[in-house]
Amino acid sequence: MENQKSHCPINLSLEIFGDKWSLLIIRDMMFAGKRYFRELLQSDEKIATNILTDRLAMLELKGIISKAADPNHKLKYIYSLTKKGIELLPILAAIGTWGMKHEPYDTSIPSHAKKIMKGGKPVLDEMKKHLAKQHLKSK
Amino acid sequence: MENQKSHCPINLSLEIFGDKWSLLIIRDMMFAGKRYFRELLQSDEKIATNILTDRLAMLELKGIISKAADPNHKLKYIYSLTKKGIELLPILAAIGTWGMKHEPYDTSIPSHAKKIMKGGKPVLDEMKKHLAKQHLKSK
Repeated sequence: MENQKSHCPINLSLEIFGDKWSLLIIRDMMFAGKRYFRELLQSDEKIATNILTDRLAMLELKGIISKAADPNHKLKYIYSLTKKGIELLPILAAIGTWGMKHEPYDTSIPSHAKKIMKGGKPVLDEMKKHLAKQHLKSK
Repeated sequence: MENQKSHCPINLSLEIFGDKWSLLIIRDMMFAGKRYFRELLQSDEKIATNILTDRLAMLELKGIISKAADPNHKLKYIYSLTKKGIELLPILAAIGTWGMKHEPYDTSIPSHAKKIMKGGKPVLDEMKKHLAKQHLKSK
């Protein structure tokens, strides 16, 4: 275990993903189905290459994503959410729900994303199953 | 409106509180009942004075907390969560729930904090009411 600043569960979580970019990478893997470095580089927020490299390595180290050679393109890597990563869904949904309520968001976001953020537990459970099928089978 | 990098509701939220320190300040106001600068400075994570000053100003600017002269000590300021700030509770709870499940947390954390993180919607609703009584009346 590293030098964590405290063992409060909120702090432990934030020491792993408590920065804007990590959560945006996870958002793109969850809601936009992105799996490749090049896809993740193309968000509206324009993440820098070195930040993306750094955050992917951290998320892999912490067991939130896994990295494997793409079976279809041997020179490419494909990133998957792990079970631990998929369980970040309620956090992302709660962040999105708050943003939709309090900030002037772009209402043209995909309707499935809106549904997930507003749908409560049954919709989240459904989405978790979908993510498990998509991400855990390819390991 | 400022130069936001995108109008995705998750991004808009993260541009406001998407950093470890902002969320730890909100944690301390929600779960430890802290209201004064000096109290907030004394977390286990040892936030630096300049970071605390900076984040409190940002959270106030964004309407998540309010700052007022303390009626009992004219030279002190007291910080309160606004309604918008209290509505961050489900996010904090989800972050804590994930940490309790996946990281080796300190099991001696207050039992009310554990209950909030594990209790689901009814417990969150109860806690929101409690926070509203504590924070919104003093405005």
